[in-house]
Amino acid sequence: MRAVDLIRKKRDSGEHSRDEIDFLVAGYTRGDIPDYQMAAWLMAVWLRGLSRSELAALTEAMLYSGEVLNFSDLPGKKVDKHSTGGIGDKTSLILAPIVAAGGLTVPMISGRGLGHTGGTLDKLEAIPGFNVNLSLAEFRNVLQECGMGLIGQTKEIAPADKKIYALRDATSTVENIGLICGSIMSKKLAEGIDALVLDVKVGSGAFMKREEDAVNLAEVMIETGKRMGKKVVALITDMDQPLGRAAGHANEVAECIDILNGGGPADLRELSLELSAWMFYLGERTTSVDEGRHLAQTMIASGQAREKFKQGIRLQGGDDRVVDEPHRLPQSRSRVDIPSPTAGYVSGTNCERFGIALAVLGGGREKKEDAIDHAVGLQFHKRIGDRVEKGETLATVHYNGDARLAEAKALIAENYFVAHEAPRQKRPLIRRVLGA
Amino acid sequence: MRAVDLIRKKRDSGEHSRDEIDFLVAGYTRGDIPDYQMAAWLMAVWLRGLSRSELAALTEAMLYSGEVLNFSDLPGKKVDKHSTGGIGDKTSLILAPIVAAGGLTVPMISGRGLGHTGGTLDKLEAIPGFNVNLSLAEFRNVLQECGMGLIGQTKEIAPADKKIYALRDATSTVENIGLICGSIMSKKLAEGIDALVLDVKVGSGAFMKREEDAVNLAEVMIETGKRMGKKVVALITDMDQPLGRAAGHANEVAECIDILNGGGPADLRELSLELSAWMFYLGERTTSVDEGRHLAQTMIASGQAREKFKQGIRLQGGDDRVVDEPHRLPQSRSRVDIPSPTAGYVSGTNCERFGIALAVLGGGREKKEDAIDHAVGLQFHKRIGDRVEKGETLATVHYNGDARLAEAKALIAENYFVAHEAPRQKRPLIRRVLGA
Repeated sequence: MRAVDLIRKKRDSGEHSRDEIDFLVAGYTRGDIPDYQMAAWLMAVWLRGLSRSELAALTEAMLYSGEVLNFSDLPGKKVDKHSTGGIGDKTSLILAPIVAAGGLTVPMISGRGLGHTGGTLDKLEAIPGFNVNLSLAEFRNVLQECGMGLIGQTKEIAPADKKIYALRDATSTVENIGLICGSIMSKKLAEGIDALVLDVKVGSGAFMKREEDAVNLAEVMIETGKRMGKKVVALITDMDQPLGRAAGHANEVAECIDILNGGGPADLRELSLELSAWMFYLGERTTSVDEGRHLAQTMIASGQAREKFKQGIRLQGGDDRVVDEPHRLPQSRSRVDIPSPTAGYVSGTNCERFGIALAVLGGGREKKEDAIDHAVGLQFHKRIGDRVEKGETLATVHYNGDARLAEAKALIAENYFVAHEAPRQKRPLIRRVLGA
Repeated sequence: MRAVDLIRKKRDSGEHSRDEIDFLVAGYTRGDIPDYQMAAWLMAVWLRGLSRSELAALTEAMLYSGEVLNFSDLPGKKVDKHSTGGIGDKTSLILAPIVAAGGLTVPMISGRGLGHTGGTLDKLEAIPGFNVNLSLAEFRNVLQECGMGLIGQTKEIAPADKKIYALRDATSTVENIGLICGSIMSKKLAEGIDALVLDVKVGSGAFMKREEDAVNLAEVMIETGKRMGKKVVALITDMDQPLGRAAGHANEVAECIDILNGGGPADLRELSLELSAWMFYLGERTTSVDEGRHLAQTMIASGQAREKFKQGIRLQGGDDRVVDEPHRLPQSRSRVDIPSPTAGYVSGTNCERFGIALAVLGGGREKKEDAIDHAVGLQFHKRIGDRVEKGETLATVHYNGDARLAEAKALIAENYFVAHEAPRQKRPLIRRVLGA
């Protein structure tokens, strides 16, 4: 078998056998197949697509390129959530303590932000001392002790995916349903989970701008997970505006603490409860989703989720005092409000641009090597449908230097749309549930 | 400007500006853009195509990545021929001496064989001592002395093309009209020629299996050449069966000598005269193609072309005695005939397979690094339309070892088609002339 022939096959819309996929993935991971051949193959895949069986083979080849964790000795089912990412999407930090407090084990292996989207690992690192770089042995100990653990992809986990993802990033072959699915599912299945709840975002701040694409991705991921014997559901959720009010790392951690304290913005609370409910249900902790929702509410109301979060922070070396005293989180030096240029109703946002504004302020990465300023951020005061007066504040910018402030302000002002009329109908936060 | 954005643009069917193409070609040639990014871009180009203006920009960027030769001080117009390649296609060795003998200068920069097609440089190296690796200064001296010179692509000539071609070969991005055109034309225009005759092959032994693809490639090359102020015509010629009777390096040189001696197979003679005629005409040596044909015939009949060939061989270090004593060319140790399994008429060939048979015998390359056996070869005794009796010889294999003989024999036997009826109509050798 030769890589050049397999590239040609995919280029000409052929379908690979499992052996061919294994040859490519294993050969590339070992270094026998050079970057340039994998890059050409990835572009051919991007343009020609992968069949369901090719995708299953790709996912498994990447999964078994490394260690598949086994936590069967730990109590309760192992469940996780994965989101395809968006602006202000911080639910992992809320779900992990709720679901762990409720008696399941949540082994979360997360990523970092790139471009306009944030990453769970970066948010966690806004907590002073928090260490996301645990070894697998340390990860196991943390999970055993408190039922939740949040780390980055170690070198043992799906190394093929790690290498292929870096190449995709450099060759404009990221946004492809098959490749996205393979990358997500190989990592998530390596966590040794029994069940997975997918939060597939759709809208102006998501990878998937159209609902049909989000549904397509969700279906492919569900099928891939089920093929491997996992329980998987997907919630298709709105990303036409930021989730919650806060974007930026310290800001978002503070907002998660608000939720765990029983407060926080309604949309973020609603989505967190719904995702927790599905995790409880799929993890067989409750016999219905409703019961799961109730259990999640109880975990918040009783303070157990909040205490679990503190325990989790402590076990990963972080300063758990931030939960009681959020001012201990990094604070920006300056703030400035973005006023509405006119009176009316918020009719929409070009939400992706807010993510870019955050990156411009130093709170995101343009390149993988970039450092992040955890203190900078955005607070969104108005949501779609809200009445706004001329000059009333739409959003507040938390910043640490004037260098690119004007650019960031313009990105926000230009992408908050205010119309004369209120929007006719409210789109629901949770649009569909698939795979249930 | 970033390579990753340009890859995305082409992936999404965008059209590059001249600056963007320059950035990619210059950056890749310098080594600033890595192989894997160029590989992804090439696959996107393969699948999305290049516009005419992108192609002109690509050709020029590759052309000016190196030296553009200037032979304006040498007598007569500078003309060349380029063929897209096929089985038994050996006309360069005939045209160069005819046209140089006729008073024009023929600075030929040629390639090596790969896969099922042969290369002019390899054929020349069947002549003991012949050196195709002249420096540009030596090339100039040879041209000055005898009007013809045949060398390989030096490091000074279109280095961008050289680097990109090697990458295309490893990434299954060779067979694309835009990329083929850019590669051919950047090298040919670097020769400092005034006019170029293209021999675009079509049929089972050619890159282009369909006439419309051959015409498309021809038109693109003609336009690209004319845009740069060159006279260009293209002959669309048949490659549904081998050209002439001989394939294999020494065999083909011997057949060229037959032609220069006034003999040789009719189809090879016809095509050689026609291509020479166009070279004379475009090079303003004659005022019509007919007159050019007549001049070419005279160059053969008078022995001037033959003497020119000997002079050319001598000047490039070769043993010119091969012209008078062809047995001095490498000879294979063994021969075996391929008999017709049935009586009837030759109805067609899968000509590409004959090229693979030759490679299997050691007379071609599977990888660029492979050595070539110049002595092995094939002689085709029957052409399409010929009557053949059962057991009569279709072809003869000249070989040097039994290792893969059975495979080679099968490839020939299985791809010579004999039918009960004679084919209805003979397809002409020269199907069309474009650009005239």
